[in-house]
Amino acid sequence: MSHNTFGHLFRVTTWGESHGPAIGCVVDGCPPLIPLTEADLQPWLDRRKPGGSRFVTQRQESDTAQILSGVFDDGEGPVTTGTPVSIIIHNEDARSKDYGEIARAFRPGHADFTYQSKYGVRDHRGGGRSSARETAVRVAAGAVARKVLGDGVRIRAGVVQLGPHRIAPEDVDFDAVYDNALFAASSAVVPAWEEYLDGVRKAGSSIGAVVALEVTGVPAGWGAPIYGKLDAELAAAMMSINAVKGVEIGAGFEAAELSGEENADEMRLGDDGRPVFLSNKAGGVLGGISTGQPVTARIAFKPTSSILTPRQTITRDGAETDLRTKGRHDPCVALRGVPVVEAMAACVLADAMLRHRAQVG
Amino acid sequence: MSHNTFGHLFRVTTWGESHGPAIGCVVDGCPPLIPLTEADLQPWLDRRKPGGSRFVTQRQESDTAQILSGVFDDGEGPVTTGTPVSIIIHNEDARSKDYGEIARAFRPGHADFTYQSKYGVRDHRGGGRSSARETAVRVAAGAVARKVLGDGVRIRAGVVQLGPHRIAPEDVDFDAVYDNALFAASSAVVPAWEEYLDGVRKAGSSIGAVVALEVTGVPAGWGAPIYGKLDAELAAAMMSINAVKGVEIGAGFEAAELSGEENADEMRLGDDGRPVFLSNKAGGVLGGISTGQPVTARIAFKPTSSILTPRQTITRDGAETDLRTKGRHDPCVALRGVPVVEAMAACVLADAMLRHRAQVG
Amino acid sequence: MSHNTFGHLFRVTTWGESHGPAIGCVVDGCPPLIPLTEADLQPWLDRRKPGGSRFVTQRQESDTAQILSGVFDDGEGPVTTGTPVSIIIHNEDARSKDYGEIARAFRPGHADFTYQSKYGVRDHRGGGRSSARETAVRVAAGAVARKVLGDGVRIRAGVVQLGPHRIAPEDVDFDAVYDNALFAASSAVVPAWEEYLDGVRKAGSSIGAVVALEVTGVPAGWGAPIYGKLDAELAAAMMSINAVKGVEIGAGFEAAELSGEENADEMRLGDDGRPVFLSNKAGGVLGGISTGQPVTARIAFKPTSSILTPRQTITRDGAETDLRTKGRHDPCVALRGVPVVEAMAACVLADAMLRHRAQVG
Amino acid sequence: MSHNTFGHLFRVTTWGESHGPAIGCVVDGCPPLIPLTEADLQPWLDRRKPGGSRFVTQRQESDTAQILSGVFDDGEGPVTTGTPVSIIIHNEDARSKDYGEIARAFRPGHADFTYQSKYGVRDHRGGGRSSARETAVRVAAGAVARKVLGDGVRIRAGVVQLGPHRIAPEDVDFDAVYDNALFAASSAVVPAWEEYLDGVRKAGSSIGAVVALEVTGVPAGWGAPIYGKLDAELAAAMMSINAVKGVEIGAGFEAAELSGEENADEMRLGDDGRPVFLSNKAGGVLGGISTGQPVTARIAFKPTSSILTPRQTITRDGAETDLRTKGRHDPCVALRGVPVVEAMAACVLADAMLRHRAQVG
Repeated sequence: MSHNTFGHLFRVTTWGESHGPAIGCVVDGCPPLIPLTEADLQPWLDRRKPGGSRFVTQRQESDTAQILSGVFDDGEGPVTTGTPVSIIIHNEDARSKDYGEIARAFRPGHADFTYQSKYGVRDHRGGGRSSARETAVRVAAGAVARKVLGDGVRIRAGVVQLGPHRIAPEDVDFDAVYDNALFAASSAVVPAWEEYLDGVRKAGSSIGAVVALEVTGVPAGWGAPIYGKLDAELAAAMMSINAVKGVEIGAGFEAAELSGEENADEMRLGDDGRPVFLSNKAGGVLGGISTGQPVTARIAFKPTSSILTPRQTITRDGAETDLRTKGRHDPCVALRGVPVVEAMAACVLADAMLRHRAQVG
Repeated sequence: MSHNTFGHLFRVTTWGESHGPAIGCVVDGCPPLIPLTEADLQPWLDRRKPGGSRFVTQRQESDTAQILSGVFDDGEGPVTTGTPVSIIIHNEDARSKDYGEIARAFRPGHADFTYQSKYGVRDHRGGGRSSARETAVRVAAGAVARKVLGDGVRIRAGVVQLGPHRIAPEDVDFDAVYDNALFAASSAVVPAWEEYLDGVRKAGSSIGAVVALEVTGVPAGWGAPIYGKLDAELAAAMMSINAVKGVEIGAGFEAAELSGEENADEMRLGDDGRPVFLSNKAGGVLGGISTGQPVTARIAFKPTSSILTPRQTITRDGAETDLRTKGRHDPCVALRGVPVVEAMAACVLADAMLRHRAQVG
Repeated sequence: MSHNTFGHLFRVTTWGESHGPAIGCVVDGCPPLIPLTEADLQPWLDRRKPGGSRFVTQRQESDTAQILSGVFDDGEGPVTTGTPVSIIIHNEDARSKDYGEIARAFRPGHADFTYQSKYGVRDHRGGGRSSARETAVRVAAGAVARKVLGDGVRIRAGVVQLGPHRIAPEDVDFDAVYDNALFAASSAVVPAWEEYLDGVRKAGSSIGAVVALEVTGVPAGWGAPIYGKLDAELAAAMMSINAVKGVEIGAGFEAAELSGEENADEMRLGDDGRPVFLSNKAGGVLGGISTGQPVTARIAFKPTSSILTPRQTITRDGAETDLRTKGRHDPCVALRGVPVVEAMAACVLADAMLRHRAQVG
Repeated sequence: MSHNTFGHLFRVTTWGESHGPAIGCVVDGCPPLIPLTEADLQPWLDRRKPGGSRFVTQRQESDTAQILSGVFDDGEGPVTTGTPVSIIIHNEDARSKDYGEIARAFRPGHADFTYQSKYGVRDHRGGGRSSARETAVRVAAGAVARKVLGDGVRIRAGVVQLGPHRIAPEDVDFDAVYDNALFAASSAVVPAWEEYLDGVRKAGSSIGAVVALEVTGVPAGWGAPIYGKLDAELAAAMMSINAVKGVEIGAGFEAAELSGEENADEMRLGDDGRPVFLSNKAGGVLGGISTGQPVTARIAFKPTSSILTPRQTITRDGAETDLRTKGRHDPCVALRGVPVVEAMAACVLADAMLRHRAQVG
């Protein structure tokens, strides 16, 4: 996990800025002989891509991923060769508008000030490297990771809280997520949520949200002690997504209010003689290692920082000003964060699978 | 961040089991010429060490840290030499009791089942590698990290929620933490909390808690884009601590309910012409890079899994049984987690400081 | 140093196959504010590019490098921003010929057999990932590294032995290298060497060579103990170049015949009061750390494995056959290895510079 | 491969100085369920330990290794548990003599000057961290690596050149190595070499040497493209050993004089239908991946820098002086380097085995 590289054995290095010619990633460490074409990537990219509804940015990008290396068709269709898979997505709608104001002033809540403070320079066009546009290539990498994991591991996420509106845990239905424009994990809430988010959007405002993640099919034993903990890797992966401010595994913060009796996931033997847990407060991870139960997490997204209401800020030349961020934005950045959460989970798990295989065989 | 190594440039590798002869760590990458003796480590270890009050395990350990390498006294007192600092703590009170039952049965909520599933073997004595005893050496490493950071960076943590009892944000006082046996960040709550935790303790039960962290003195610019984000590293560090199930940076999950207007930390110029933020919803990190404001986080600890009430579980031989975890335990593992949270924050920040210096000079 | 990534802080990840659409690299960890355009890369690429003389492969590639990210022009010319620099070189002359024979048979001396053994699949077109074509992007990365190092560090290499023909150490002149088609470190040998290599070429044969490297301007103190040794990193970097079979630092294998008296580089004080070494048997590195003297190394290249004489081999289907490698080849692969040796040295040193700055400031 | 850590998955972190209380290592990533006791380490340590003959330093060390963690006896003997194996060796004969002169003056050929230049401080007692004493723990780690590799992989090394005296390749007999005090790979040369080295020793001088390495039983497929090349990892490992100045794989520098016809290792099918190479110029590695043939290398050691003849040098205070290194030394440091070469090869191969298993299964 270096600056722009994620993972130990299944390693993803991403590059590119919002308004540069392209963004992309290099996926190294991928096992060989896995069938892989661009058609495997596109459905996941389509879920994240902008312009799909009024609730996401109107930037027009086809987000067409091209594979430049690491696959070879020796007569039976393209498969991975074990060498790096380089993926590129060309930026198509990087408007050449006047960035004068944003070039000078730091947008509150954005990374403008910190990039400038750190590097003494920043690509201010559309947020440059700090733009959520970078997450498109994570989704492409996640699609490769899913192929590595195989169909037995099922990774699903969805919005379970939009601002003050929550879906009760017992009502969460991940099957609903990609059938509504809000990525909501329940079809029942969609009408009310759409009305709510329309109000936010029309006010030029934005709102935060919580995304829930559930991964089934992870066998017991993935992860490792101490600093290789599966939940620590998941936490880092989620926190690396733009706008994420909190991560919970299993019961999360609720566990702070539980007694030891309530929190212990008791065990019995199933009819097949295999271990069965009677609850899943642990979120599928104990001691940093998977239990075989579903891996569950919740991820808090802050509201989009770009809003139409003027906010007080300063310029890089040391003057005070008020800034109103015009342009195309997501009223709730968490919506398109759903496929990104899934993708990062896929990358973490593919990496954990390879690491486990390395040590234990 | 490999299995038992944490950090990129300030690298801590830990080893040891709860009931082995010793535990220890190797701190590599430490800058040279930093005055360092065992006396610099001990005060922090003393804060975490067991046996100090009725609210923590009665295991008797002096937790005396010995430095075996990496420091040299060339006439003006011992200083780091730039080579690895090896630190060892001998286990003194590893009781040679009968572990028969625990050796066979998996304690619910513990890592027994997952270690056995992964490795096919586990050191069951006191939890082996998964014991919180390992965190003692993190505290020692954190003490070295504090020396690297210098006095300008102040790292403080404290319990702000004990089960259902919370300290209001405006009442949090980190100065109170080490003056009470509960590591509570407010002296006002201590009598009531002591009574509450006595009840938990006497019932042979346990309870979860939330620890708050605040770091002041971090300059703007530490951290890095994408996967080197300061908050992602902090999240992984905290989630690597035993019993932690959730991490928030700044407003955390509360941010999910905020509008963009509420969440944006506006900026003005201070009297000295330097940037001033009017709020700190970001928790001192934007785009993965420090803003210069205090770095704030909240960490959720689950209740200690070892409780006196029998719980349903299974044995490694595939039989069902009920297990009651006798022995010495912390009724609230988060209490002694406070110095560990501080130590991990110190390690993350020392690493970030060195990485920043490497790239930007 | 992962499979396709080189370096710790100045990190280069390369991707691409000989006959795929493109090759490229991602350079991460580059300091910000370094002026960088494609014009900084091209001269170095031009030195390595094929088709320049009858002594190198006749494959026609312009080797035009395009920078896709990580630089930004804020009015004073493009500079690095501290984010990943993605570089792409499109393959232009990847002939779509019949690879039938090579697809089936393993070329002796090539990586065909080992890739197939490891991965169960290989991109046989032009050697795929194992082709020396990959080294073009190393040269591009090396050009970035040179900018990081600045003009004070001068990196030069040249051929000092061509088959049985050697340039005496006292005659080595690195200024001559890029003035002759043989990359020879002496203009005096060129006529005889050209005649010799013409003979090799016309016979459809190939020959090995030795490349010498000299880096001046490296200050004392770069590198680190034990596994971060500057010479160990250099050795790995050189051995990672296609066809390299040996690496010497300083006196190298000659040191095995020296006495302690002969080998010790004695020291005196120069007129300016600074340390002066009276010899440089160490090659500028002692204990893994630079001495301030020139860093010197010698690198042995085996002959190109592709030759016109039929060689005995087997097919992947388990049959014996004789194989004659037709097509475009370098009669001495070491020639175009010279810019690659320089590039790898530049990457190692830029990384060492950043690592030193991180630890020591 | 960080400063004091070697390996990617089978990771060895070493610590300790020549005259500190102890030296040690932490071996992380070791597969579980491998029988391991201190008795597995000691025979290898005994081969390297000082004081065994008049040809090695007279420092008296039992080099008794103690395992502090990572193994557990659950009734069938101690086995690895998958957690870090911490090994400690106490320094027993660190004489408290007057280091006054060495503390001030830089011994030519030693790392004194470079450590001081880099860190501004050095532990001058016996060379501190740069002492060959550190290699004892590499041998211990190598013993663990051998257990990981199993008996099928046989790793042997021996001295094949002592100063000007060489053993012809056809006379190399690795079985002879541990039967003579010179670690010579031929019993025939021992009388003459003993006489020669006695002369060197009595003159207070020293001499360089070449060590050959041969590993059999490595299957085809270990290693990886580009920067994960098996030969690059071996080269770095060997060059990280004290006093090593050159590394060759297979034909090495001799390959520079070979034609493509001579260098190509032709292939046929064996009686069992499996691939057979007709020669091994490649040293068992093609394209960075093992071929299944023996992995062969040659490693050049410089002469011990500590000699009795006064040498010109300078002091850290900037004065010129002449220095004569008294004390206990090896007249040929390569001798005890033989077990270290084997140990490093074992570590590289164990790591390669795990990495291969991770990616390919």
